[in-house]
Amino acid sequence: MSNNLIFGRHPVLEAIQSGKTIDKVLLQMDAAGTFAREVRQVCKTHLVPLQMVPKERLNRLVRGNHQGIICWLSPVEYFPLDTLLPFLFEKEKLPLLLLLDGITDVRNFGAIARSAEVMGADAIVIPRKKTAQITPEAIKTSAGALLKIPICRESSIIASIDFLQQSGVEVFASDLTANKALSEMDFSGPTALVIGAEDRGVSPSILKKINQTFKIPQVGKTDSLNVSVATGIMLYEVVQQRMKG
Amino acid sequence: MSNNLIFGRHPVLEAIQSGKTIDKVLLQMDAAGTFAREVRQVCKTHLVPLQMVPKERLNRLVRGNHQGIICWLSPVEYFPLDTLLPFLFEKEKLPLLLLLDGITDVRNFGAIARSAEVMGADAIVIPRKKTAQITPEAIKTSAGALLKIPICRESSIIASIDFLQQSGVEVFASDLTANKALSEMDFSGPTALVIGAEDRGVSPSILKKINQTFKIPQVGKTDSLNVSVATGIMLYEVVQQRMKG
Repeated sequence: MSNNLIFGRHPVLEAIQSGKTIDKVLLQMDAAGTFAREVRQVCKTHLVPLQMVPKERLNRLVRGNHQGIICWLSPVEYFPLDTLLPFLFEKEKLPLLLLLDGITDVRNFGAIARSAEVMGADAIVIPRKKTAQITPEAIKTSAGALLKIPICRESSIIASIDFLQQSGVEVFASDLTANKALSEMDFSGPTALVIGAEDRGVSPSILKKINQTFKIPQVGKTDSLNVSVATGIMLYEVVQQRMKG
Repeated sequence: MSNNLIFGRHPVLEAIQSGKTIDKVLLQMDAAGTFAREVRQVCKTHLVPLQMVPKERLNRLVRGNHQGIICWLSPVEYFPLDTLLPFLFEKEKLPLLLLLDGITDVRNFGAIARSAEVMGADAIVIPRKKTAQITPEAIKTSAGALLKIPICRESSIIASIDFLQQSGVEVFASDLTANKALSEMDFSGPTALVIGAEDRGVSPSILKKINQTFKIPQVGKTDSLNVSVATGIMLYEVVQQRMKG
């Protein structure tokens, strides 16, 4: 990631204002005054995630004089979901989207992207915050898939679900307490799968919005499947149904 | 793993001869004379994997005086396959076994074990050599499943396949060049799935012995699924078929 790292007040502001795709800005916690206000404003305008961190974290990331601010250029261009979905419909594709709700482990993120690309999903939707970044390790774990599959970075997964449902996409999620099995779902229409965080699954506030929940049959004593394995199984079930249908 | 590490000539020999389950013995490359011969003999008798390594590797692993030899105690007891299989038949179980052919990444090993346990596989068969060890990281990635599911450590996967086939178990493997799809396989009988190494798939010498090969339908441009995701999908298909059947 180091070759995508930019630091120093002027270089970072210029990168954001030039419209480059920025993964994240880290601003020193005690930054104040005109400069801090300007950074906040510019990040807001350009929808760039901003995080306040202790000076020590910046010191660990940069050997030179970082002047209290660094940012990473994104290795990919993000696609706005409200542009991508109409595009899929125009191309007469049957949309299959993944929405990641709190996947923070870069290896899980990479493995999910790999399965998504292999199984022909059309895009992965990630939130701006509390999500794994597209780091070199994520790209490596994805076997390059993260550079091939469109990624939508949206303000909130809940808002994305609203938009998808209004556009005629049915939204599914796995839930260990669901009554129906994955194989009982009907994936023949436009489909979005919400993938929950490894530790807590799909957030309750998001579960409320889901059209259908399902469980993957399990017989062992271990808690649950790894999230990237579970995602692979869901994608397989969608592909199987659509091939038969 | 360090708390399972034993070093020094007398302690290591004693551990092996006492019948403890040993994961691996590392012997200094230039070890010679009576002691080296004795180590080779004892490892052969007790079926313990022995590896010759440079002194520097031992120095990195042990701060004390290792005397040219170290070994690791295994965190699990291994089950002999020729004892386990008859036991499954006696219990009127429909066997479902995984055979790992060259999985060397501990995280893949752990993730596969986790899926295997969750999906109700009866055992995982690993070879003595060229395989990931049951390290703390493997156990962590498996969410503890490696301590719950029986592991068979056998001299060779080919010999295990011979034994399974003679015992009425059908042996399957995925192969990107196969004509049939995973869903066209019949998993209603005693079943073993061979899982190939991440980089090269199932070895050609093993593929020759397989009863049936299949492919998992893929549509993307990325090479293939991650091996632990592919294994999860295979297990899901077996479980689905058996639930319907």
